[in-house]
Amino acid sequence: MALMKVEGKAPTTELCYGNETSVFMRDHDLANEIMGHMSFTQTIYLMLFGRKPGDGESKVFDAVLVSLMEHGLTPQAISARLIALCSPDSIQGAIAAGILGVGSRFAGTMEGTVPYLKEIIAAGDNGPGKARELVKGLRAAKKALPGFGHAQHKPEDPRAQRLLEIARESGVAGPHTAALLVLSQAVDETFGKHLPINVTGAIGAVLTDMGVNPAILRGFAVLSRAAGLLAHINEEQSRPAAAYISALAEDGVAYTGRKG
Amino acid sequence: MALMKVEGKAPTTELCYGNETSVFMRDHDLANEIMGHMSFTQTIYLMLFGRKPGDGESKVFDAVLVSLMEHGLTPQAISARLIALCSPDSIQGAIAAGILGVGSRFAGTMEGTVPYLKEIIAAGDNGPGKARELVKGLRAAKKALPGFGHAQHKPEDPRAQRLLEIARESGVAGPHTAALLVLSQAVDETFGKHLPINVTGAIGAVLTDMGVNPAILRGFAVLSRAAGLLAHINEEQSRPAAAYISALAEDGVAYTGRKG
Amino acid sequence: MALMKVEGKAPTTELCYGNETSVFMRDHDLANEIMGHMSFTQTIYLMLFGRKPGDGESKVFDAVLVSLMEHGLTPQAISARLIALCSPDSIQGAIAAGILGVGSRFAGTMEGTVPYLKEIIAAGDNGPGKARELVKGLRAAKKALPGFGHAQHKPEDPRAQRLLEIARESGVAGPHTAALLVLSQAVDETFGKHLPINVTGAIGAVLTDMGVNPAILRGFAVLSRAAGLLAHINEEQSRPAAAYISALAEDGVAYTGRKG
Amino acid sequence: MALMKVEGKAPTTELCYGNETSVFMRDHDLANEIMGHMSFTQTIYLMLFGRKPGDGESKVFDAVLVSLMEHGLTPQAISARLIALCSPDSIQGAIAAGILGVGSRFAGTMEGTVPYLKEIIAAGDNGPGKARELVKGLRAAKKALPGFGHAQHKPEDPRAQRLLEIARESGVAGPHTAALLVLSQAVDETFGKHLPINVTGAIGAVLTDMGVNPAILRGFAVLSRAAGLLAHINEEQSRPAAAYISALAEDGVAYTGRKG
Repeated sequence: MALMKVEGKAPTTELCYGNETSVFMRDHDLANEIMGHMSFTQTIYLMLFGRKPGDGESKVFDAVLVSLMEHGLTPQAISARLIALCSPDSIQGAIAAGILGVGSRFAGTMEGTVPYLKEIIAAGDNGPGKARELVKGLRAAKKALPGFGHAQHKPEDPRAQRLLEIARESGVAGPHTAALLVLSQAVDETFGKHLPINVTGAIGAVLTDMGVNPAILRGFAVLSRAAGLLAHINEEQSRPAAAYISALAEDGVAYTGRKG
Repeated sequence: MALMKVEGKAPTTELCYGNETSVFMRDHDLANEIMGHMSFTQTIYLMLFGRKPGDGESKVFDAVLVSLMEHGLTPQAISARLIALCSPDSIQGAIAAGILGVGSRFAGTMEGTVPYLKEIIAAGDNGPGKARELVKGLRAAKKALPGFGHAQHKPEDPRAQRLLEIARESGVAGPHTAALLVLSQAVDETFGKHLPINVTGAIGAVLTDMGVNPAILRGFAVLSRAAGLLAHINEEQSRPAAAYISALAEDGVAYTGRKG
Repeated sequence: MALMKVEGKAPTTELCYGNETSVFMRDHDLANEIMGHMSFTQTIYLMLFGRKPGDGESKVFDAVLVSLMEHGLTPQAISARLIALCSPDSIQGAIAAGILGVGSRFAGTMEGTVPYLKEIIAAGDNGPGKARELVKGLRAAKKALPGFGHAQHKPEDPRAQRLLEIARESGVAGPHTAALLVLSQAVDETFGKHLPINVTGAIGAVLTDMGVNPAILRGFAVLSRAAGLLAHINEEQSRPAAAYISALAEDGVAYTGRKG
Repeated sequence: MALMKVEGKAPTTELCYGNETSVFMRDHDLANEIMGHMSFTQTIYLMLFGRKPGDGESKVFDAVLVSLMEHGLTPQAISARLIALCSPDSIQGAIAAGILGVGSRFAGTMEGTVPYLKEIIAAGDNGPGKARELVKGLRAAKKALPGFGHAQHKPEDPRAQRLLEIARESGVAGPHTAALLVLSQAVDETFGKHLPINVTGAIGAVLTDMGVNPAILRGFAVLSRAAGLLAHINEEQSRPAAAYISALAEDGVAYTGRKG
């Protein structure tokens, strides 16, 4: 008897098929209908939704995918550089080591905001009241509000503001984006000061309005950051920093025990 | 005394800087000059080369990045789906588990071809002679020729042919692409049959012509496949296949030892 | 201004120090006091707690570390085999791809049980009442109870029963292990049938009694499974199964779209 | 048509089988014959070789597995700590991020020495001559000799000397270990100074003498270091250093471009 069982209907896939002469992705011939005709971003959209994006949808996807690529010597960038130093022949490992840090604390936090937005939407006309209730509850429980605040950016996270603007202009902003603004107002009122909407909060609202499954939202941050990490690994070739950073850490964190 | 030493000039980075109100990437303001103005692909180019791509360069980068996204239920896609099943709250781990398979045997093989191309270029007018010599040497040593042949596609790898066409039309094809064709002719002559240039061989030649450092070539396959893996993880939400595949494996690989 | 700041007291480490002639781990000379004198398991204990384990503590650590090594062609084992097939020159990637599946759904679930045990302990004499209350609450919320039930093993998970026995005999079983048994009785009463304590539930209780920080409990499953994965990768050398499993998946999951 | 084909005889496995009441590993009942009776190390040996180790074999395996656990704030330890900071709820990702650095440059280099040892063994009585020839060839080609030299340890790598001693005392040292000493003499003669045998060189020789497949040698470093990384992640709970290291890197690597 097995942990899992082969039973019921066999699963199917709509993503991709290849034969001797062609590769089909979501019913499009890769060589003849995608390569040279569609951008990387448009093809990502196609693979997720099964249809090509409109211009506005492409523009927003691009804005999301560039917004989290870089933030300097982040923990993810340091990890990718260090692992590239140790395993120079497996760049896939270096990129993997970096994206593993697109987690629940930095960068990978977009899915946290969405349930609040859904509660505000469900409250209908009482959205603002619901938002205040939610924020007060979090405040009383001393819990952080996902999607708000940034260690570095103030009074606004410039990426969040710009993404919301592009989403409006592109016609993809919908109820989740509206609810995010309602929530933002409740945050400012409740805390008596302005906390910025951060970029992951904005991405969560905008992509949910576009129909992205909340369960995969963090994946956009992963793709975005993976591209940024490739640039860091590339820069290591001409401006190596990883060994220096490693030495800084070794020097900076003193050993307190027996030395001989 | 330390494994590494903090000495000499401190390293620098040209990639990214953030302050309270802005993020600068390669001297461009992320919110105002990149988001809404540049595609994901163009921004990847900017981060690697420090300048914006021309239209032809963008088009070729896009073609490369879509060409390796998908090939159905590949080992990488299966791994990503299985790990998403086990660790549904850390999608970064599922994508990492898949890209770790963009290695030396499948998909991540573009850097292998480049040294041969460089030897052919260095031979000048005797390029075809050099190419025959290299292929004969590999054949005698019973070594595989990186960049040629594909388990599924024949007589051509449709993605390779299309990429070479786009590179020519976009004006980015240069000596490495030319050398790949010389090498291809030597392959056919030496083996007495046609072996297709595969997509990783074509990517290696074209990206090297564009100035990409051979040490990071495989990174393009990693990014490309990472995007494809996100679509597989997304499909698991509505058409779960991972548990079924796991059961197929458990049933299909019999245990031969003691059972009680 | 930076995402993070170098301020306050520099951190320190008690783990390890190396000079030209020696490596010290937790104040013990690696070459002269650890190698040849202490087992791998004892050294793991030393590094976590800063002191050598007693015989009972060693025995329980060993029992924990062997208990999750293997369960056949699990999703983790399949991933590790597939990635080893794709990236044969980076075994670190294959092991990483497997352990990334030691997550919240299988194998990596020991930390979930501990908060319930702590509530039961805090209830003092009213432990059984508290346990019933907790189980009823979870049942009403249709939430799973971490640490109970197994897809394959019944009426008991043999590893859990054996681990609890070893913990008792070794004198390390304490209040968390006792609370687990109280919780188990509440589970059976509330559901009107016997649900087995599973191995991760037992590990959570026993290791917490030994003073392991709940935040790192899952790490024991990671180490244990990593060792098992090495055996799978080793078996691939003489009995390759990965390509076959990959083919089973490709054949078993039909593509439903355009094929030409 | 598929990338891979389900054809020929189905593969089999000798590793593990589970049913309702038992788990069998290499024909041994996990709960009754392994847990409480065999150490983690002995069980690793059992899973790799299909038989229980003798006392000497256990001792050597233990010595190998403790020898690479720790070397302070290594690149791998920094990565694991940083990723644990970013993704505190997926410790599997933090350990994976660290072990991905057990690669071709540090720690994961044991397989490089073995082919040289095999050539020396094959030369029979002319082993010393063969060794000199190999070393001279490497020196002329300005290639590094895997298994010799260490950035920190001199005149000897204490772990290597101790491991060789334990291997001799335990009766497992054989032709590969002997060939390593022959190679060492050739190195000293050819370079006119003493280069130490490093720990990965010693591990490569000793484990090959024990019958470990060279293709999986690096896996021992991965397991060993994984255990060390768990101790680092554990120490982060009480002595956090990751955010400080991240800030050191951000401060230490200056951005040279536009800032406003």
